[in-house]
Amino acid sequence: MIDTIFNHRSIRKYKSDPVPEKVLDEILKAGSRASTTGNMQVYSAIVTRDEDLRKQLWEAHFKQDMVLQAPVHLTFCADFRRFTKWCEQRKADPGYDNFLSFFTAAIDALLASQNVVLAAEAHGLGICYLGTATYMADRIVEILDLPEYVVPVACLAVGYPDEEPLLTDRLPMEAIIHQEKYRDFQPEDIDRIYKEREESDETKELLEINKKETLAQIFTDNRYTKKDNLHFSKQFLKTIERQGFMNQ
Amino acid sequence: MIDTIFNHRSIRKYKSDPVPEKVLDEILKAGSRASTTGNMQVYSAIVTRDEDLRKQLWEAHFKQDMVLQAPVHLTFCADFRRFTKWCEQRKADPGYDNFLSFFTAAIDALLASQNVVLAAEAHGLGICYLGTATYMADRIVEILDLPEYVVPVACLAVGYPDEEPLLTDRLPMEAIIHQEKYRDFQPEDIDRIYKEREESDETKELLEINKKETLAQIFTDNRYTKKDNLHFSKQFLKTIERQGFMNQ
Repeated sequence: MIDTIFNHRSIRKYKSDPVPEKVLDEILKAGSRASTTGNMQVYSAIVTRDEDLRKQLWEAHFKQDMVLQAPVHLTFCADFRRFTKWCEQRKADPGYDNFLSFFTAAIDALLASQNVVLAAEAHGLGICYLGTATYMADRIVEILDLPEYVVPVACLAVGYPDEEPLLTDRLPMEAIIHQEKYRDFQPEDIDRIYKEREESDETKELLEINKKETLAQIFTDNRYTKKDNLHFSKQFLKTIERQGFMNQ
Repeated sequence: MIDTIFNHRSIRKYKSDPVPEKVLDEILKAGSRASTTGNMQVYSAIVTRDEDLRKQLWEAHFKQDMVLQAPVHLTFCADFRRFTKWCEQRKADPGYDNFLSFFTAAIDALLASQNVVLAAEAHGLGICYLGTATYMADRIVEILDLPEYVVPVACLAVGYPDEEPLLTDRLPMEAIIHQEKYRDFQPEDIDRIYKEREESDETKELLEINKKETLAQIFTDNRYTKKDNLHFSKQFLKTIERQGFMNQ
């Protein structure tokens, strides 16, 4: 258990070997054992293996090759569709067309996805989360025919790894853990927390390639820019609204 | 690994035994190994053990006794605070004050929380997610001094179990898994999916106690009502805005 967690690395190159049905069933079942609000299970997972559909998803996901390479693509959705239909069929008046319900359902979906990740890795599979899931939610809705009350929140490439990447570095634990209450960061805390990463050979190389003065600038100017964030933020909110979750 | 996942149950009664420091450190470190967008680690976890603070949190969490009983309370937050400060200190212009960035950070926090849950359970600890985390986000912000760009998204009670609950039932897998694309539900699908749960002795008892005709009505009329959802939805959106994540 613990070993699986500590050995996790995102896999970006996959073998073409298919994932056996029995293994796929078990890792999806592992997802269903995660905590879920009020045992409502207000999420869904779409298993896409069809090549044409995966090609469409690959285009949506900024043409990241792993979407084409990995034989299985999983789309986890916040999903109040089934639950709402159940209520309507049972003389009950559903009130789940609001932002809180969307977020509740997103939590369900994300906890389930992480169980699936760890179960997959325990079976020797590799995975990669695609950050583009929320950026391109509107396009994913179209490709996968997602109806009202269904919004994609996490996508995974799943398959057998064709690379053995090193463990990714992490910041010291003081960067993420606060004791009792939140202890805000002073300039010297920030310097100390980022020191090792900033002084690494990898960073020096990145700065040279990107012609930047600081590592932070590579994030703000290249990887996660204000302009892109604002653009995709508006789109994602529109998708949440269009899927029926913004009645206030 | 797989066994830990399949043995998960939420624990609502705890022993007073403290969680050893070494165990706590390891389970939090397990959280830090989860995937995180662009390795930014835009989340935080607040470890609250102080009795007075836990009493305040207990009140915020609808006075659910497990918050007082469990010796450790963890609050997982979507957190762009440290990252934003780092950017500002490194001549980089951060653009993370928008909804997409909030959601990205929430994903980071939720994946980390689920790793912590499984690592805790592998160590013989019990946990319970508190759905009230998002309902009462504004109050949690006050109690834990959460600054701008920090929003609580998941709270956990953590401690040694003082009960052995049965495994919770789940709907058949067809309720959550879709092949290739979304296959929408027909009335007969809904009937089939909910049949076993609706016909169980537990449901019959619930209907009698609550004087309701259908199980769905217990959700819509008692547990998760439209009125409450709308109220807490507005509050949660306001908190996200007040914490700085709604500049569009």
